[in-house]
Amino acid sequence: MPDTTNNPNRRSWIEVNSNSDFPIQNIPFGVFLTRDDVITIGTRIGDYAIDLGALHQLGYFDGIPLTDDIFLQDSLNDFISDGKKTWRLVRNRIGDIFDIDNPTLRENAEHKKIVLFTLDEIEMQLPVRIGDYTDFYSSKEHATNVGTMFRGADNALMPNWLHIPVGYHGRSSSIIPSGIPVHRPKGQTLPAGEDQPVFGPSKLVDFELEMAFITTDANLLGEPIPVDEAEDYIFGMVLFNDWSARDIQKWEYVPLGPFLAKNFASSISPWIVTMDALLPFRVDGPKQDPEPLPYLKFNGQKSYDIHLEVDITPKGSEATTVTHSNFKYMYWNMAQQLAHHTINGCNVNSGDMMGSGTISGPTPDSYGSMLELTWRGEKPIKMKDGSERKFINDHDTVTIRGYCKNDKIRIGFGEVSSELLPPFETKKK
Amino acid sequence: MPDTTNNPNRRSWIEVNSNSDFPIQNIPFGVFLTRDDVITIGTRIGDYAIDLGALHQLGYFDGIPLTDDIFLQDSLNDFISDGKKTWRLVRNRIGDIFDIDNPTLRENAEHKKIVLFTLDEIEMQLPVRIGDYTDFYSSKEHATNVGTMFRGADNALMPNWLHIPVGYHGRSSSIIPSGIPVHRPKGQTLPAGEDQPVFGPSKLVDFELEMAFITTDANLLGEPIPVDEAEDYIFGMVLFNDWSARDIQKWEYVPLGPFLAKNFASSISPWIVTMDALLPFRVDGPKQDPEPLPYLKFNGQKSYDIHLEVDITPKGSEATTVTHSNFKYMYWNMAQQLAHHTINGCNVNSGDMMGSGTISGPTPDSYGSMLELTWRGEKPIKMKDGSERKFINDHDTVTIRGYCKNDKIRIGFGEVSSELLPPFETKKK
Repeated sequence: MPDTTNNPNRRSWIEVNSNSDFPIQNIPFGVFLTRDDVITIGTRIGDYAIDLGALHQLGYFDGIPLTDDIFLQDSLNDFISDGKKTWRLVRNRIGDIFDIDNPTLRENAEHKKIVLFTLDEIEMQLPVRIGDYTDFYSSKEHATNVGTMFRGADNALMPNWLHIPVGYHGRSSSIIPSGIPVHRPKGQTLPAGEDQPVFGPSKLVDFELEMAFITTDANLLGEPIPVDEAEDYIFGMVLFNDWSARDIQKWEYVPLGPFLAKNFASSISPWIVTMDALLPFRVDGPKQDPEPLPYLKFNGQKSYDIHLEVDITPKGSEATTVTHSNFKYMYWNMAQQLAHHTINGCNVNSGDMMGSGTISGPTPDSYGSMLELTWRGEKPIKMKDGSERKFINDHDTVTIRGYCKNDKIRIGFGEVSSELLPPFETKKK
Repeated sequence: MPDTTNNPNRRSWIEVNSNSDFPIQNIPFGVFLTRDDVITIGTRIGDYAIDLGALHQLGYFDGIPLTDDIFLQDSLNDFISDGKKTWRLVRNRIGDIFDIDNPTLRENAEHKKIVLFTLDEIEMQLPVRIGDYTDFYSSKEHATNVGTMFRGADNALMPNWLHIPVGYHGRSSSIIPSGIPVHRPKGQTLPAGEDQPVFGPSKLVDFELEMAFITTDANLLGEPIPVDEAEDYIFGMVLFNDWSARDIQKWEYVPLGPFLAKNFASSISPWIVTMDALLPFRVDGPKQDPEPLPYLKFNGQKSYDIHLEVDITPKGSEATTVTHSNFKYMYWNMAQQLAHHTINGCNVNSGDMMGSGTISGPTPDSYGSMLELTWRGEKPIKMKDGSERKFINDHDTVTIRGYCKNDKIRIGFGEVSSELLPPFETKKK
């Protein structure tokens, strides 16, 4: 089936600013609460959210094999289970409905009133019920930076790193959508030079600039997914801030990996941008040397040119952009990650989320975490309001934005933005 | 509310052998498929499974605040969400219904035909939809054994181990109930003395003797659970075989922990034994030295005296019991694990599962894995059929059993048993 929705010249009868992340070529999927307190699946064009549940009830998806309630749900899991063919039929149909030359909905004021919402009328929710969440560690620059800091330049990359898309399991329950604030976590840390741990709020809360992909039901337990089929099971991508408490992490992570340093909260952008919308932005990835084992060898372009940037905004002050990076720097691509994850027979379900790991670029102004940007706090960042940051302060808001752009269109992810609150205090009973 | 169901002198009108794990004092909860292909929540007394959905429809739970369909579900999650007070009301009512002196159901042949099933008429399912699965590493003997093998006796325990109930996130999707066979996983390993990894079936598949507890909705994101309230949020326990591929684990696990070495399959026993049923078997745990930080200090007996044993049965041959251990050896208890898991605000939901980590006792015949029992294969185990085992062979069945016993009653978990199959082979298209 050809993809008819990526024509860069197509325009919508909904007005879209030239710098919008959401032209008619994007058509992301999300879940929102409407002004009537109804939860529904929707998409977005320009600054309008579109209620797909209502559109479906009004017959706009007639002819596409969909259950009646497929969009009247609090998660995209069932729709994602319907598979790639259905995703494309729906996305193409949405493109047709909102095409500037299609009068059907454009001229139907009553229907428009039912299906269109301004952004202040809705509240975005988590787009999927995440069954399992895995985080990879696939930026060579990030792994090298962290390795250099903790083990020295000679042992920066572990011997397995160039052979394995290293990954580990994370916590699903604490993944939250953009906008929800996060408390500074408490925990055990080992003060420098001491041999007994202390308890208290983390002093080194950090962001991690990541992206994540959302899968469909991919395989049965026991059956690996071949690397060249892996992309068929990826629905789309979101921006991802993998909040991290560096002092807690340092004390707890040997030998079984990060745990409480990460699972206090992980924030994602609410609109899932489909892989189909990202097709025009495929690029080659970094050369992989040594050559990967056969089950990780792939054909074609499997990396994506996605500009990424992070702002820190102190409360009541202006934003400072602290880094510019790009998803294309990732050493291991998503197809390799999914093939590796399933090579032992591990089963992947609809709504599972897999993070990229921190996306650091080659230059110091493109690193994906404060740990790297300030080199463990040794080189504080100067903020626009004159203050300095080594890590994240209470009441700072961290915002990640991401978009693809060529000379014809811009396809973006919006943002994931959340404020760091002071530690949670138990109320007296 | 007093617990009326643990009277050791109570008898049921269902005949129960004296060595049964399931006397009327147990009343575990599970999910099964009936002879009519209906899925329901049930309990078990002796060798009978009891359909709680049918019992509820017949009015036997009248007076207890339960929704009509609470037991007509494919998981216990909603019932577990109802909380400890409801669990006790239901468990006590079941005890009353099946008490030898209560004629109501005993003398109603028609009702008995509807609610009672012999074990060959049902098929046990996963009892909960597991949102998140965490595995701890809480046996000091196990951590010391593994540490000694990999880092030498002087560095056996990591500096954090005596301060932190070390844990990490595992994969929920590949947790399966007893009876489902498991394929030997393939993956990358680094042959001894080489510097390039190879791909192929794991040569060192192992079991891990564990138990796991199942939680209810315990807290909101941001709010820790105090250690002395933690047990209120634990519904019950199961036996757990945390299948492990030691050669894959060794190559992949630094620095982010085990991943593909574990997530190819994890097997649990299908009946959840409630914490109330285990009350008579509370004991003191090992002395904790150094004293834990205040948030991990607890009052009272929080360990449990549960006998554990593991059989290996080659295909067509007799079983060899390879270890006897006990849950009471665990250094960190479940209340401490749950308090630690949430001290940073991580939220815990109904149906989440938390594994103990391998349960090794103090003597070499009580170790909880082949890695330890054969000391990395250096001391093979002699099987009853004359063969030897360093790790698990294809077509071996591994069976874990567990029970509590005093001079009056025995409360058991049944078993978790599964066969290791040869590696999965992709069918030619």
